Amino acid sequence: MKRTFAVDPWMIATHQFHPEDKRLQESLTAIGNGYMGMRGNFEEQYSGDQLSGTYLGGVWFPDKTRVGWWKNGYPAYFGKAINAPSFLPIRIKVNEQPVDLAKNSFRDFYLALDLRQGLLTRQFIYEGDQVEVRFEFQRFLSNVVKEAALINVKATVLSGKATITFDAGLEGRVANEDSNYDERFWEPQAEDPTQKTIQLQTKPNPYDVPQFTVLLKQQLRVNHQPVTGVVTTGNGWLNEQIVADLAAGETYQLEKDVIVVTSRDVAPSDQQQTAAALMTTLQTHSFSEQLAAHTQLWAQRWEQSDVVIEGDLAAQQGIRFNIAQLFMTYYGEDKRLNIGPKGFTGEKYGGATYWDTEAYIVPMYLAVTPPDVTRALLQYRHDQLPGAYHNAQQQGLAGALFPMVTFNGIECHNEWEITFEEIHRNGAVAFAIYQYTAYTGDESYVNRDGIEVLVGIARFWADRVHFSKRANQYMIHGVTGPNEYENNVNNNWYTNTMASWTLSYTLARLPKANADVVAKLAVTAEEKAKWQDIIDRMYYPVDDELGIFVQHDTFLDKDLRPASSIPADQRPINQYWSWDRILRSPFIKQADVLQGIYFLNDRFTQAQKERNFDFYEPMTVHESSLSASIHAILAAELGKTEKAVALYARTARLDLDNYNNDTDDGLHITSMSGSWLSIVQGFAGMRYDHDRLRFKPFLPKEWHRFSFKINYRGRLLAVDVSEEVNVILLAGPSIDIEVNGELKHLEKGDDHA
Amino acid sequence: MKRTFAVDPWMIATHQFHPEDKRLQESLTAIGNGYMGMRGNFEEQYSGDQLSGTYLGGVWFPDKTRVGWWKNGYPAYFGKAINAPSFLPIRIKVNEQPVDLAKNSFRDFYLALDLRQGLLTRQFIYEGDQVEVRFEFQRFLSNVVKEAALINVKATVLSGKATITFDAGLEGRVANEDSNYDERFWEPQAEDPTQKTIQLQTKPNPYDVPQFTVLLKQQLRVNHQPVTGVVTTGNGWLNEQIVADLAAGETYQLEKDVIVVTSRDVAPSDQQQTAAALMTTLQTHSFSEQLAAHTQLWAQRWEQSDVVIEGDLAAQQGIRFNIAQLFMTYYGEDKRLNIGPKGFTGEKYGGATYWDTEAYIVPMYLAVTPPDVTRALLQYRHDQLPGAYHNAQQQGLAGALFPMVTFNGIECHNEWEITFEEIHRNGAVAFAIYQYTAYTGDESYVNRDGIEVLVGIARFWADRVHFSKRANQYMIHGVTGPNEYENNVNNNWYTNTMASWTLSYTLARLPKANADVVAKLAVTAEEKAKWQDIIDRMYYPVDDELGIFVQHDTFLDKDLRPASSIPADQRPINQYWSWDRILRSPFIKQADVLQGIYFLNDRFTQAQKERNFDFYEPMTVHESSLSASIHAILAAELGKTEKAVALYARTARLDLDNYNNDTDDGLHITSMSGSWLSIVQGFAGMRYDHDRLRFKPFLPKEWHRFSFKINYRGRLLAVDVSEEVNVILLAGPSIDIEVNGELKHLEKGDDHA
Repeated sequence: MKRTFAVDPWMIATHQFHPEDKRLQESLTAIGNGYMGMRGNFEEQYSGDQLSGTYLGGVWFPDKTRVGWWKNGYPAYFGKAINAPSFLPIRIKVNEQPVDLAKNSFRDFYLALDLRQGLLTRQFIYEGDQVEVRFEFQRFLSNVVKEAALINVKATVLSGKATITFDAGLEGRVANEDSNYDERFWEPQAEDPTQKTIQLQTKPNPYDVPQFTVLLKQQLRVNHQPVTGVVTTGNGWLNEQIVADLAAGETYQLEKDVIVVTSRDVAPSDQQQTAAALMTTLQTHSFSEQLAAHTQLWAQRWEQSDVVIEGDLAAQQGIRFNIAQLFMTYYGEDKRLNIGPKGFTGEKYGGATYWDTEAYIVPMYLAVTPPDVTRALLQYRHDQLPGAYHNAQQQGLAGALFPMVTFNGIECHNEWEITFEEIHRNGAVAFAIYQYTAYTGDESYVNRDGIEVLVGIARFWADRVHFSKRANQYMIHGVTGPNEYENNVNNNWYTNTMASWTLSYTLARLPKANADVVAKLAVTAEEKAKWQDIIDRMYYPVDDELGIFVQHDTFLDKDLRPASSIPADQRPINQYWSWDRILRSPFIKQADVLQGIYFLNDRFTQAQKERNFDFYEPMTVHESSLSASIHAILAAELGKTEKAVALYARTARLDLDNYNNDTDDGLHITSMSGSWLSIVQGFAGMRYDHDRLRFKPFLPKEWHRFSFKINYRGRLLAVDVSEEVNVILLAGPSIDIEVNGELKHLEKGDDHA
Repeated sequence: MKRTFAVDPWMIATHQFHPEDKRLQESLTAIGNGYMGMRGNFEEQYSGDQLSGTYLGGVWFPDKTRVGWWKNGYPAYFGKAINAPSFLPIRIKVNEQPVDLAKNSFRDFYLALDLRQGLLTRQFIYEGDQVEVRFEFQRFLSNVVKEAALINVKATVLSGKATITFDAGLEGRVANEDSNYDERFWEPQAEDPTQKTIQLQTKPNPYDVPQFTVLLKQQLRVNHQPVTGVVTTGNGWLNEQIVADLAAGETYQLEKDVIVVTSRDVAPSDQQQTAAALMTTLQTHSFSEQLAAHTQLWAQRWEQSDVVIEGDLAAQQGIRFNIAQLFMTYYGEDKRLNIGPKGFTGEKYGGATYWDTEAYIVPMYLAVTPPDVTRALLQYRHDQLPGAYHNAQQQGLAGALFPMVTFNGIECHNEWEITFEEIHRNGAVAFAIYQYTAYTGDESYVNRDGIEVLVGIARFWADRVHFSKRANQYMIHGVTGPNEYENNVNNNWYTNTMASWTLSYTLARLPKANADVVAKLAVTAEEKAKWQDIIDRMYYPVDDELGIFVQHDTFLDKDLRPASSIPADQRPINQYWSWDRILRSPFIKQADVLQGIYFLNDRFTQAQKERNFDFYEPMTVHESSLSASIHAILAAELGKTEKAVALYARTARLDLDNYNNDTDDGLHITSMSGSWLSIVQGFAGMRYDHDRLRFKPFLPKEWHRFSFKINYRGRLLAVDVSEEVNVILLAGPSIDIEVNGELKHLEKGDDHA
């Protein structure tokens, strides 16, 4: 654990700067607006260790993976959202001396990310030779004009005289740290010193993945008025120099406005013109006016989603940090995008879409964002159905296999044990459709696009199972379950369960779906009979003596023992143990059987839940950031409140306290929903199956009170838990909900239920 | 199937040259002398498609593998015997026109590899503008001076006048086709135009693998007299030009003698001098004299190893080709070397050592080479014990884990499912010690170095098993058996069997071993008790109803069906099916349970052998070149003679007839023993357990007669099978052997037994 920022309800702020924590600090001060995002790199030059990262949503490259032994059905490439040309640089010299915090003397450092609106500010006093200058930076990526980045630097000479040179630039000579053999992904196309633009294209690839062209444009302003400095350009870069001569006490403020357009939206030949128009619009307002409009949009988001915790300031900060970072990553504006495990905050996981979205983000977003945001996530999968059919076909299978990792629907990860074995993701994609429908009551998705997805997945499962003559049952061999600390197992209970569930749900939805869509899908009676036969004769490993569902066929043959038997200095085991030892151990990375019990919560008895929790949780090492929250929710349901709170603690400040010692790579974006789920589905016990919103709350011991807001079927509700429980209908028509098993009728204006 | 060379008892010869078969032809005309080897590339320039390959035994490079997701215990690099600087080039111009068979007009092409001594000859008549020249090449790698390559080119002008320019060179600007991002592995060090040498070094690596320095020296001769042409050099290359003006009917003969020394034997600073001395020695004799001495050594080898087949010329050619290629790869001179799956004939499998050596080569080499050749193979493993201990430690395990792929004992493959799962190789390494001891009767290896290997392996197994409390038995989870069409299985019968066998054999050998060595090994009573407990309580999957040993825990749950159910146009399945489909299928790549029955042949009843053969063989697709021979031997033993002959046919001419359509990559060197094993252990039914050599021969229907020679405990025996069976003692003391269950007493001079 390492806490580098002060505890505060709304700010991620520090007065400390330690070069050894630079990467960690960069991750924690990342900002984004769904269209693009960036790590908290410095504007001015920095010669110390850092991880430069600017990422544009959906701009990626199919990197070579054919190193080693390639086999049929392996993905052709490893997709990654590449480090994009940077619009950040404002290199600074004071009296010809470069400002570089890795080398200079400075004081009064302050760095702060305001969670209210994703505004990053930074200050320090530069101590030069007979001169002192205070620098103040502000930066945000606009939610109003998505293509816009606004950067502001203010220099105040505190003593001495300063000739300050600002070199504000656009930099296309960027690389990925994870590139093979230092390969570069960008090729310069053009630089225009008059328009102050650079244009670059991703290099060609042999995989039919489109090349992306981006254009970056900058316009400087001083005192809100456009200015033009001395512009120089080179291959893939542009620099604009402004020099200010300042006496002591004088202040100079330089604003750098940036527009970034990509060929995802604008044809390369139109980019110059489009960017110019966007810049004109942007500059009709001052930096402060733009920030105000941007902040206004954020206020609306917080109005519908804020969680208040009293009595635990660290927890308060944690949950707001998580919500803010999630919203900076995705708020549903672009249905072609999704949420990568690290969002826009690092290179790891390649910025691609994982099953995390359906499993962990959807249940939160349903409640904290307007329904169309979640629906956009579902739409994303529907729009990628051709890719999913392609993936199944690559394995010689029918139907649709949604990818484990993707940009365009086509699988692009580079481990076979993940790509075609971790097929349980297909269950989560189907289950998200159920969740959306059950929560919103909106059947318009499931009845048209949704049924296409469901039938595609059902057809996959029907082909992927095999019939074991010996057992007289259907089985699913060769899978990796959610517990990635085992792989290539047979009859993973979770996978078999979700496969069968998908077939049932699809059969149940088909008769209600849009007739034209159903006709096009042409599911035959024979197919339906086969699906029903699979449902009826699916094999599930169980152990009657232990009274548990068994993770997979031979799990109980392992040397079973609790995680507490692992010496403390060998944790996390993924850093200390060989992969061989991990695979053969009984230790579970994240919820597996329990993930199924979480999803299909209403199917199981309390006793079943308890026996499985008590069996599996002690063997779980929670080394996936996605693990603790699911366990916290089940622990809460089982009345194991202390356990629930302890597990929640691991999710709430995972990045802020750098629990896993890996936040320097980037933030754990997709697991950030875990703290919200722990509070809402765990502590407040929210459930929503069977068309009824229900709560069964408890108040964690250390807390005085917690409250949160949710939207539900056209209503905005506030749930307030202290010694008593209040649910208030803030907006929308009256509704009956259940609290601790009792039905409550809520009307707008009532102050509690 | 594609047969590009004529059927002949001793020659691999053709009058055909088809550019599309160039790579295949190059593989089939590869030559080697154990120290180095090369594909059958042309001396003169060739602008068409080809795979250039010259390889020096033990000269390799640790190539980068960290692409993708690296985990603890994965090998740090992928080792490969790299394409070495070439000493082959003799570029030719006739009247300023380059001779290039991809472009020129020519006739009377002839290419021949003489199996008697590994001499490659080539001829063609070049048809130029008003000129015709016959070129005749000869090339061999000397068995007398291992560092020497001798190349001879003779030009005869048939019509017109010819100014012939020979550019004989040393070429260090070579690459591997399989290199990542076209990386080069060699860095030029020096060129000496006077000494006519070039020296290069492998590039630095971060893995503590030594850099290799090689020096190549050439000396031309005309009419057996040294000559010097015009020498030019560049970075990493040297060229020596000789020009000859010839009238019609005139002949010019140029000989290129080459010495190659490497830092494996000679320090870089001494290489110049050593090479000069070797060259002086070499040139004390003419090309023909050197060839004669070389051929004499080959004659001795054939004297002890030839197999004669009457009535099937194709089979005759096949077995001699296989023996010759094996001997060109390895004859035990350098204990630091071993036998790679492709020998010196291609890049695939990286020229490294696999378990193939112990499993398939040792049982043949024991009989066809002097005992010290096989012993050198055993010694190789002993000398690499530190690497084996390192490999186990990388997995967090005790004892010695011999590598799946290696140069120096350290695992260097790049698939986890192979490296730390295919641990059955440790059993084969131990079993080779048993085989050597049982065959030769020589206990001096097993009692000293061998016991160190055995104890290392035993300690590994004792730590690698785990105790299943539920089953009250020891188990081995997470392995890949010999059948690589499944992986990460539990309790592979073969692996469990060989693990337990190793523990038993080690316990049995310990009391007989050298006391000093045993004292140093310090095996405690507790350890021995643990080993015995594992032997006593090892779990083996069996099915009593089917009466078979089960390949692994859940094999019988598969959709079991015979390989004959696979449509013909989907074979081989590894070319047509996804890896997912293959892994989940019941189809077996190569003998797995049956490999165990082959090794521990005397442990099983005829009925057990039969039931297992009948169960597994029909599901076996034999897509490993190592598969058919084991099945042929068991089929022969079970009296399924037609099956045995059919299976043998796949091994005998695998490369000559390009059965698997992959010989263009190189020859299947380590499986070449399969045809010999099929004949000797299969058709002749040779066994040698329990200190008794036994035969139980049958004559394949199409054959009139077959005979072979074996050495056995200081004797040379000839076994001759026609309508009757004769075993003749050619050399050594009298011996009792068993033929068809009858004891026969053999004396030297008797003409049959």
